[in-house]
Amino acid sequence: MDAEHKFGVRKLEILDKSKGFIELLQQLTICDSVSDKEFEERFQEINSYGDNHLICVIEDDRSGKIIATGSVFIEKKFLRNCGKVGHIEDVVVDSAARGMQLGKKIIEFLTDHAHSMGCYKVILDCSLENKAFYEKCGYKQKEVQMVKYFM
Amino acid sequence: MDAEHKFGVRKLEILDKSKGFIELLQQLTICDSVSDKEFEERFQEINSYGDNHLICVIEDDRSGKIIATGSVFIEKKFLRNCGKVGHIEDVVVDSAARGMQLGKKIIEFLTDHAHSMGCYKVILDCSLENKAFYEKCGYKQKEVQMVKYFM
Repeated sequence: MDAEHKFGVRKLEILDKSKGFIELLQQLTICDSVSDKEFEERFQEINSYGDNHLICVIEDDRSGKIIATGSVFIEKKFLRNCGKVGHIEDVVVDSAARGMQLGKKIIEFLTDHAHSMGCYKVILDCSLENKAFYEKCGYKQKEVQMVKYFM
Repeated sequence: MDAEHKFGVRKLEILDKSKGFIELLQQLTICDSVSDKEFEERFQEINSYGDNHLICVIEDDRSGKIIATGSVFIEKKFLRNCGKVGHIEDVVVDSAARGMQLGKKIIEFLTDHAHSMGCYKVILDCSLENKAFYEKCGYKQKEVQMVKYFM
């Protein structure tokens, strides 16, 4: 790909399913194929949260494929004077599109969104391997993530 | 306090502000006093998410004080076949009520709620100091938490 090409970040649209959005998520974790109906239902559900749950994508306008994505949702708290926290999740860049700072663009877009929503902080969990990348984006390690799986 | 006393976990109610709920959160982090109006607005906002954002408390029915709390909200994803993830936040037990397994009760309540909502996993972030406690609750360390503060 051409590193000089400008890649803009935009909100996920319902047509992005046909542009490889699910296949891109499959590069991140387990993600079987999703039917059009399931996709549309989940899309509308997330959409109903408005600016409180944003999924963004980068589309390669030459191939028409979605090549990067990430999401942020806004948690409402009582602490910090009824503060808000942005949670970044599901950041992935197409393995064929690495090295073009697309991940950084996604993180900046999501971080700016959380800031504009009045959050006092944004948090995310990542592997130790990806820690240096997030440090370049202005993040610092703070706590450890604990998990319990049901399936 | 009497360790034999039974402490039940229930959902946060609007009257809990007058039972020391905000003062309890102040043991966790920065939390200035919140006006009744601010509290009610945030309470209704969180309540509007229904089972997708649950705050639970333990009230000491002898003192009438809230002595433990925690929250969980359900994130809707596309990956894992349009899966859901529970995020546990803001777990705190009154410093005068430690050693009675109240924290464990809160975590079990929130974890069960996420399970009943169909989540494939529950996650939370904690300090290294609290890691052993969450391991006793069935959680395992997975990733690291990164944070960016705006204020």
